[in-house]
Amino acid sequence: MSEAEHPDEAISIILVGTSHPGNIGSAARAMRTMGLTKLCLVAPERFPHREASAMAAGADDVLEQARVFDTLQDAVADCRWVMGCTARRRSVVMDEFDPSAAASRIWEATARGRVALVFGRERTGLTNEELQLCHASVHIPSVEDFSSLNLAAAVQVLAWELRRAQLACTSAPDTPMMVDDLPATAAQMESLFGHLAQMLEDIDFHKGRSPDRVMRRLRQLLLRAQPDQREVRVLRGIFADAQRMARLAGR
Amino acid sequence: MSEAEHPDEAISIILVGTSHPGNIGSAARAMRTMGLTKLCLVAPERFPHREASAMAAGADDVLEQARVFDTLQDAVADCRWVMGCTARRRSVVMDEFDPSAAASRIWEATARGRVALVFGRERTGLTNEELQLCHASVHIPSVEDFSSLNLAAAVQVLAWELRRAQLACTSAPDTPMMVDDLPATAAQMESLFGHLAQMLEDIDFHKGRSPDRVMRRLRQLLLRAQPDQREVRVLRGIFADAQRMARLAGR
Repeated sequence: MSEAEHPDEAISIILVGTSHPGNIGSAARAMRTMGLTKLCLVAPERFPHREASAMAAGADDVLEQARVFDTLQDAVADCRWVMGCTARRRSVVMDEFDPSAAASRIWEATARGRVALVFGRERTGLTNEELQLCHASVHIPSVEDFSSLNLAAAVQVLAWELRRAQLACTSAPDTPMMVDDLPATAAQMESLFGHLAQMLEDIDFHKGRSPDRVMRRLRQLLLRAQPDQREVRVLRGIFADAQRMARLAGR
Repeated sequence: MSEAEHPDEAISIILVGTSHPGNIGSAARAMRTMGLTKLCLVAPERFPHREASAMAAGADDVLEQARVFDTLQDAVADCRWVMGCTARRRSVVMDEFDPSAAASRIWEATARGRVALVFGRERTGLTNEELQLCHASVHIPSVEDFSSLNLAAAVQVLAWELRRAQLACTSAPDTPMMVDDLPATAAQMESLFGHLAQMLEDIDFHKGRSPDRVMRRLRQLLLRAQPDQREVRVLRGIFADAQRMARLAGR
């Protein structure tokens, strides 16, 4: 288990040299929605700032607890594993992961201590010197002709992948289904089809044609819909009323 | 293959009742980074707007080609499958997917025609009436104590999942479908529901009770079944014969 009390707290999101305080706020909000709370800022141009608070939209706790450092080296000092987010392939040779693989790798690494996920400047990303501090990199494969992911959007994608990986591990027990929500049994479906066939006869749907083909089609349609118990009751109620009308019509 | 020339173009992102034009721009940028270009806006509070253009940061083409509609029903009229993004579980009973499963399902559905992914208002999401137009819903499982995903962040997460699913699959061309095998469009389904509602009145199914609840249930059942063109014709034939019996019965 990690050094931190809670595994989420073993992961720090580090933003390096952010120009726009609004991006810091949006990143905080993106983190917070996915359960990440530890934010470090390396030499932000303006922080604290009202735009950051405005964009955080309630994730003020993340901003208030954010730690500010002069250099990335200082920020990652107590981390045992560091992953850098890169917009394109770099000359620095290191393992590059896609977002899903990166998320799994990050969670694995939390078992051994603090982990940092580092995002560079809006325009220029991380310097090669900063990338040298990373154990591996993650690249979000946006389309080639428009790869300009907003900083907070990149944080959102990776925070989501971390959340997704976490949820996949801690498979919550499903809520029990009520009896009425259970799909109808095969026997109930056969009984429904029998009722449907009789109703079609009664309302003179076939008009002399063979009923086989249309019944095959309707079976497929209803099997595909997989009605639950309550829906089967509604359908049978409709069939019964159509039959009642046919009787009143003297058929 | 889909009706559109390019599979990405078979997917429309629809934003309903967006208050902040900046969110429309950020959503366009989020889409564009992941290769999505078709944006529809339903009754946006302000559009076009300079804030939208500023936040789009180069995804101007998406904004310029965005189509504006008065209602969601109009926006999805030519779609054969509609997925709604919901912030929390709703009373409307429908299949709910997580983002990854939703992305796979959406790509699958593009083989049969246009597909829409719908996002609601910033504060209040989609109304129950709007959700009724959806075949299924997707929920982004943010943390419980802070589930306030920004609209553009939600678009980014789902656009990313669509991109990830696309990159993961080796696009094998599907066999062409015959017109009769195509799922009914949203407009055809609405017309079918209208006919069903009238038939239920005619055969006196409700017996004084409100029709709303049973119609909601039947809509969901039929949307889930995704009838094709021929099946819709069979169902309408059945409805017509039931109505004929009711007329003969003197109702």
